[in-house]
Amino acid sequence: MQQTLTKRIYLTPPPPTEDDQRSEKQRILDSLPSELGSVSMGLSAMRELYPVCEESGWKLTAILSRTSAGWEITALEPGDTTGRNFGICADLGSTTVCMRLVDLNTGEAVCQESAYNHQIAFGEDILNRVFYSKGNADKLEEIRQATLLTFCEVIKAMEAGTGISLSHCGAMTVAGNTTMMHFLLGLDAFAVFASPYAPRATRFDPYPACQVGLPFSGYVYCYPCRANYLGGDIISGLVATGIPDREEISVFLDIGTNGELVVGNRDFLVAGAGAAGPALEGGVVKTGMRAVDGAVSEVVLEDGSFRCTVLGGGTPAGLCGSGIVDLLSELYLNGMVDLRGKLTAEHTMVQERDGELCVCYAPGLYFWQSDIDAFLRTKAAANTMVEIMLEQVGIGLDQVERFYVAGAFGTHLRKESAVNIGLYPDMPRDRIISAGNTSLDGAQALLCDGTVWDRLDQILDKMEYIQFGAVPNFIDLMAAARAIPHTDLSRYPSVRQKLIDNGLLR
Amino acid sequence: MQQTLTKRIYLTPPPPTEDDQRSEKQRILDSLPSELGSVSMGLSAMRELYPVCEESGWKLTAILSRTSAGWEITALEPGDTTGRNFGICADLGSTTVCMRLVDLNTGEAVCQESAYNHQIAFGEDILNRVFYSKGNADKLEEIRQATLLTFCEVIKAMEAGTGISLSHCGAMTVAGNTTMMHFLLGLDAFAVFASPYAPRATRFDPYPACQVGLPFSGYVYCYPCRANYLGGDIISGLVATGIPDREEISVFLDIGTNGELVVGNRDFLVAGAGAAGPALEGGVVKTGMRAVDGAVSEVVLEDGSFRCTVLGGGTPAGLCGSGIVDLLSELYLNGMVDLRGKLTAEHTMVQERDGELCVCYAPGLYFWQSDIDAFLRTKAAANTMVEIMLEQVGIGLDQVERFYVAGAFGTHLRKESAVNIGLYPDMPRDRIISAGNTSLDGAQALLCDGTVWDRLDQILDKMEYIQFGAVPNFIDLMAAARAIPHTDLSRYPSVRQKLIDNGLLR
Repeated sequence: MQQTLTKRIYLTPPPPTEDDQRSEKQRILDSLPSELGSVSMGLSAMRELYPVCEESGWKLTAILSRTSAGWEITALEPGDTTGRNFGICADLGSTTVCMRLVDLNTGEAVCQESAYNHQIAFGEDILNRVFYSKGNADKLEEIRQATLLTFCEVIKAMEAGTGISLSHCGAMTVAGNTTMMHFLLGLDAFAVFASPYAPRATRFDPYPACQVGLPFSGYVYCYPCRANYLGGDIISGLVATGIPDREEISVFLDIGTNGELVVGNRDFLVAGAGAAGPALEGGVVKTGMRAVDGAVSEVVLEDGSFRCTVLGGGTPAGLCGSGIVDLLSELYLNGMVDLRGKLTAEHTMVQERDGELCVCYAPGLYFWQSDIDAFLRTKAAANTMVEIMLEQVGIGLDQVERFYVAGAFGTHLRKESAVNIGLYPDMPRDRIISAGNTSLDGAQALLCDGTVWDRLDQILDKMEYIQFGAVPNFIDLMAAARAIPHTDLSRYPSVRQKLIDNGLLR
Repeated sequence: MQQTLTKRIYLTPPPPTEDDQRSEKQRILDSLPSELGSVSMGLSAMRELYPVCEESGWKLTAILSRTSAGWEITALEPGDTTGRNFGICADLGSTTVCMRLVDLNTGEAVCQESAYNHQIAFGEDILNRVFYSKGNADKLEEIRQATLLTFCEVIKAMEAGTGISLSHCGAMTVAGNTTMMHFLLGLDAFAVFASPYAPRATRFDPYPACQVGLPFSGYVYCYPCRANYLGGDIISGLVATGIPDREEISVFLDIGTNGELVVGNRDFLVAGAGAAGPALEGGVVKTGMRAVDGAVSEVVLEDGSFRCTVLGGGTPAGLCGSGIVDLLSELYLNGMVDLRGKLTAEHTMVQERDGELCVCYAPGLYFWQSDIDAFLRTKAAANTMVEIMLEQVGIGLDQVERFYVAGAFGTHLRKESAVNIGLYPDMPRDRIISAGNTSLDGAQALLCDGTVWDRLDQILDKMEYIQFGAVPNFIDLMAAARAIPHTDLSRYPSVRQKLIDNGLLR
């Protein structure tokens, strides 16, 4: 673990004598291994020289953080504390901030905690927060403070959960989208959303935590962003999946509030982003909800009735993203929804309420035609992005070795259902990988391996950014992709076979 | 003025377009001249990207400061403000903090301001402040805050006096003794005074002003210290006088509260320090006072009575250092004090009051035998330091091309009087240079020429430090030097001649 962004080194410099009056700081610098190169000592560590040096009998641990200039000693502790070398990695999401406390001697996470982002007080939708703070330094500062408060809460929860003090933490890595990085660092984020879409900043140096406003002595390392809608969370995800290191071609799809897509390998990376929509987080479906207790996460049609799996095991309260996909898949494969996405009025399980067709998937809970329409726009966007991207790159689906689906959504989703409705392409299922929180995983990878930091510029420079809106036939492609699974059924042979098996197609 | 520690560069990067969405930060970095090398942008400058870039129509000035890693943009201003490139240099004295506002386009000081150091509240004597704060972080913080308050007052006075805002000042250089640097940076200073005399820190990196606690966006550059009693004020003085650059040998003597001495040239530097004593600041003389209004700064004996020059022109209130030296010189050359430093009871102008001999130098003001005794200890210390140093280095006084006397004391002192009483050596008067506040001058030199910063380590590494207390015959030499001008009168031929001229010697 030589390459971590922070190190602890146990030192036993000789105590000063009248014949050797080098300063306490100098004795420590002189006792460091020379292969570290240039090492400085920060002001807060200098203020710890007394009493640490004297009281420890000159047996002490220096905590070092990587900076642009080399290494900096950011804290001192008496005795040998090299066994307690912890770092923090963070996924700064617009809804949730998730962190892990990582033991840098093993590379393993010791605990993981998360909290809702206090920014939500300034708008559930990220755009509301941007407009709230637009051109107003005081309001921008409110949002920055809300972000820092969330960070502090999660850090405290990790401290409480493990009994580990993090005040001398040497490194925190952060991955988040471009807007979130603006808010964390106190940058006006309006430029992220307004033409010509040049963010204030996309690449970040290591900053002292105290300058960022975080309560520990080390440095903060923020993943860089590639463009306004292609943030550090995606770069982090690429690092987590290893796509930029491998020869085989992979697709990386992150569908949260927005959809981001990358296709590539070690030779090329093409990336794009578009409004996938909150549908996948349950946002546009009437009984949609986040994946919390009470959410229906799985639906199976058995013997003419829906069997729902409910998170937390209680009474169903609504559908989370994976529940929507499951339900729609079952409706389609059982003839309740046609390939245009329309509920079949003739089907016995389809009913009309208040002039709109719907199905009852749980007692008192209905899934409406308008829900389906809204959801299919999102699924069409995701599908079209993949299609366009592969076409731009000039490769076929069969050349894609791995299809990563990032985000909490991907984790809970059943691959088969996602293929059935055309959200995922019809490809060998073992090539579809639910990659989980790749933003957090990539932050952890960076924390444990400083060579990642050195390679980020390469990754960014290699990345080509496509604006989907500028693709000429985008609208036509979207329309075609709104069908279930797709207007061109030949692209979905496995789904076609199921329809035949179910007697819906000949 | 290419080498200043801070620069302003006028930039006109192209505004962003949908075809060129580089971030605002990146556009600025990309538009910098490539010869600057590695340039970063600090967080506070990033927070100024909006609205500076947009509102200025992409015509803006970047303010850069030198860091350990290269250059950092520390602030942005709309329009072309390269004509207003100001830096601050500071002499951090235990009694007075003195600063200059320097126009870095010309290298000239625009104004100079000073204030009493608020640390005085914690002890007139520096040792009292050290003991007050010893091992007590809260009290140390009080002293640090007092130091910062003084700095802020002087900065505000300069702003008020010139109408120039310093919030975007890119660089402040600071020279001060080892203890003062400890207090400014918040380091426990007890180690400076206690065996084995290893300070907490003696070499300093450029620190962001906000980390030091100062109200501007640039960096603070502190002169390094060579040893506990040989601080940055002396290193700064050497830079100011140019001694380490020249072939000819010079002596640098700074006699304030302590005495510091350096002998050397571009090939060698030998330095030492000792307790010279507050005598030279009027401290141990009963009617002694600082060189403020009312202080007698010059004394001449004319027609059997003392003619006093009074600072401010009013009624005499006491003697400042130069007045003491003048008075003692006149007493000696006119037979009122013998070579042992004893008042001559037989002289008509010498009187006895309360059982002690004295002379009345102004209405109601007396100079006592005990004053002379105390003062001669100080003069003996200074004289002996020079003598020992030259002996150690193995050169004679005739090889000393320049004899610099630093400090406010040296500025007001009349050379002839100082030679007469043996405080200065008897050497050609044009070789004796009253150098003024060399600590402040050196800080200004560093501010205007960053190559000085690069050469400081060389100067320090070349400097040999002699502990006068460890010289075997120190006490004997001190005793011999207590005579006026010296036990060995052959060392003072010009004084000998005056005594002969005055009929006091044959």
